[in-house]
Amino acid sequence: MNHKKQVPLSRANRLINHGPVILVTCIDPSGNGSPGKANIITLAWNMVLSMSPPMVGIALGRGRYSHELIEKSREFVVNIPSIDLLEATWGCGRVSGRKEDKFARFKLTPLPARRVAVPLIAECSGHMECLVKEAVETGDHTLFVGEVVEALADPSLFSDHWVETERGIQTIHHLGGSLFLHQGKVVDVRHPNQ
Amino acid sequence: MNHKKQVPLSRANRLINHGPVILVTCIDPSGNGSPGKANIITLAWNMVLSMSPPMVGIALGRGRYSHELIEKSREFVVNIPSIDLLEATWGCGRVSGRKEDKFARFKLTPLPARRVAVPLIAECSGHMECLVKEAVETGDHTLFVGEVVEALADPSLFSDHWVETERGIQTIHHLGGSLFLHQGKVVDVRHPNQ
Repeated sequence: MNHKKQVPLSRANRLINHGPVILVTCIDPSGNGSPGKANIITLAWNMVLSMSPPMVGIALGRGRYSHELIEKSREFVVNIPSIDLLEATWGCGRVSGRKEDKFARFKLTPLPARRVAVPLIAECSGHMECLVKEAVETGDHTLFVGEVVEALADPSLFSDHWVETERGIQTIHHLGGSLFLHQGKVVDVRHPNQ
Repeated sequence: MNHKKQVPLSRANRLINHGPVILVTCIDPSGNGSPGKANIITLAWNMVLSMSPPMVGIALGRGRYSHELIEKSREFVVNIPSIDLLEATWGCGRVSGRKEDKFARFKLTPLPARRVAVPLIAECSGHMECLVKEAVETGDHTLFVGEVVEALADPSLFSDHWVETERGIQTIHHLGGSLFLHQGKVVDVRHPNQ
């Protein structure tokens, strides 16, 4: 939960370029209180869609509570968890926000965003604040296409790109079922033997 | 280049669920020879878009030669390279197929697919044969949405999911610039200490 630093929008794509699982936050714009009742959904299905303007896509099953919220509020935040949030990442994908407040259940802290009404998750390592530009039906999911209007990251883990720590790269990647990839190492193709 | 085994279409999503960089093959349907002049493009921007029917998305810059080919032929193959193909993966993203035959240049072997006219890359570890269902303009890229009609993988590396070898998971993930993540380990969130 270190202090976050702004990431230039031209580099925001690198927050998810390597395919991590993400925690997407969204709000019910008609909810009571401010900034509205916030929810969290775990998504492996995400990608970069454009460099300029910076855009990303997230796919949600059409029955999901977060699908309903993003359709209404037209905003979302992509939060990138590190391996220390593995259990919360798993849990947020298995509990419905219709029934439970996932921030409370998984001891996560909502933090005001700069450009959208949706909160960030303070414990995550990187964030992208997004405005929905399009929603495309693809089979049993909807792809929400968002323009990234603000990006932030923990400078000890992301500095121009995700950096290798003593325990490798800290992001987590969903292999399927209850299995995740973590602790990947960095190789520079220009200097492969370093 | 082991013998490949069919992956059930209900599990095909797991070939790219964890966000690897892919090599997409495509052909010029108006080209001479059979199955037409094939090309290869390296893409970090890919994702799963639907479980049933199984669908994936790939984003291509609109000036790219492969963009032109996929628009014409409405087919593509997603090939997943292992770390031993790092240099070819890098190279196929930096050379244009308008000028060079990338199969020849990077010593890759085209292999007939089962359901599409586009060849597979024999040296890759997994493959998804796709039919284009939609093309969506997203900023400076086009998202091609493909239905997966056939999936194959090397059973020593993928068996229901990517498996950890002595040198970790063998797929590669693009961090940005010339940097890639590799050798990730597997953690099972249900048994995190094993």
